[in-house]
Amino acid sequence: MDVHYLEDFAPGQRYISQRLRIDADQIKAFAAQFDPQPFHLDEVAAEKTFFRGLAASGWHTAALTMKLLVGSDVRPAGGLIGAGFESFNWPRPVRPGDELYIECEVLEVLPSRSRPGQGIVRVRITTFNQNAEPVQDGICKMLVFGRKAPQA
Amino acid sequence: MDVHYLEDFAPGQRYISQRLRIDADQIKAFAAQFDPQPFHLDEVAAEKTFFRGLAASGWHTAALTMKLLVGSDVRPAGGLIGAGFESFNWPRPVRPGDELYIECEVLEVLPSRSRPGQGIVRVRITTFNQNAEPVQDGICKMLVFGRKAPQA
Repeated sequence: MDVHYLEDFAPGQRYISQRLRIDADQIKAFAAQFDPQPFHLDEVAAEKTFFRGLAASGWHTAALTMKLLVGSDVRPAGGLIGAGFESFNWPRPVRPGDELYIECEVLEVLPSRSRPGQGIVRVRITTFNQNAEPVQDGICKMLVFGRKAPQA
Repeated sequence: MDVHYLEDFAPGQRYISQRLRIDADQIKAFAAQFDPQPFHLDEVAAEKTFFRGLAASGWHTAALTMKLLVGSDVRPAGGLIGAGFESFNWPRPVRPGDELYIECEVLEVLPSRSRPGQGIVRVRITTFNQNAEPVQDGICKMLVFGRKAPQA
């Protein structure tokens, strides 16, 4: 698989990832390490919360989204480097047994004026469950190098 | 430690967390699981990349930020439930040996019109390293319940 330079990106390009299944043990293990709250740790305790059952930490969903992105055909030269997000949302919970996949769409390509040879590629990254319902969406600014950049 | 209801939050409230140290093994283990790219996995390979040395995945920083938040005095009734972020950035990399802490500042309290008894608390959450340099910042919309909400 070839890498893509800044010059190769164009608005409208779309990428779909493979699928990744998440189970209850993974949800609890991630939560125990990073987000130890009842609705991420225990089925019974979770029933009485806002989530009405075990739900993955949003940061677990975010980390799995990154894993799916790294395994996808989105391959900027120099690697996937996120400068940040303009918006970032979790419209619905991720549940045990869900199968996640992502869609990445290029919105805009912005060559840097101050640093020739690099730029920002704005992408919408949406994570879906097996019912094609969005569980996470965000607009990300990726730092991408051009063919003449030293790092690329 | 008491929990806080929607009525207890007010703009200007600030919380500072404990500190948490991150080491190279943790950086590599997280990356192997969720963000397997050279600059997060291997010191030597990382030298030749944009990061010029091993750096934590931004999602690792985000997950540790959540851990620090859960351990902090920010304790909404019903738990820490993030609806999303209006902005989310990683202004500089997290390096092995960094000690992270967070500051959480309440910006705005927005009671829901359609769902009495709950609302959104807008907070700025900034993660700093041991040199008080920001490594992550975001404006988060937290779902918070009032004293009369069924879930609270």
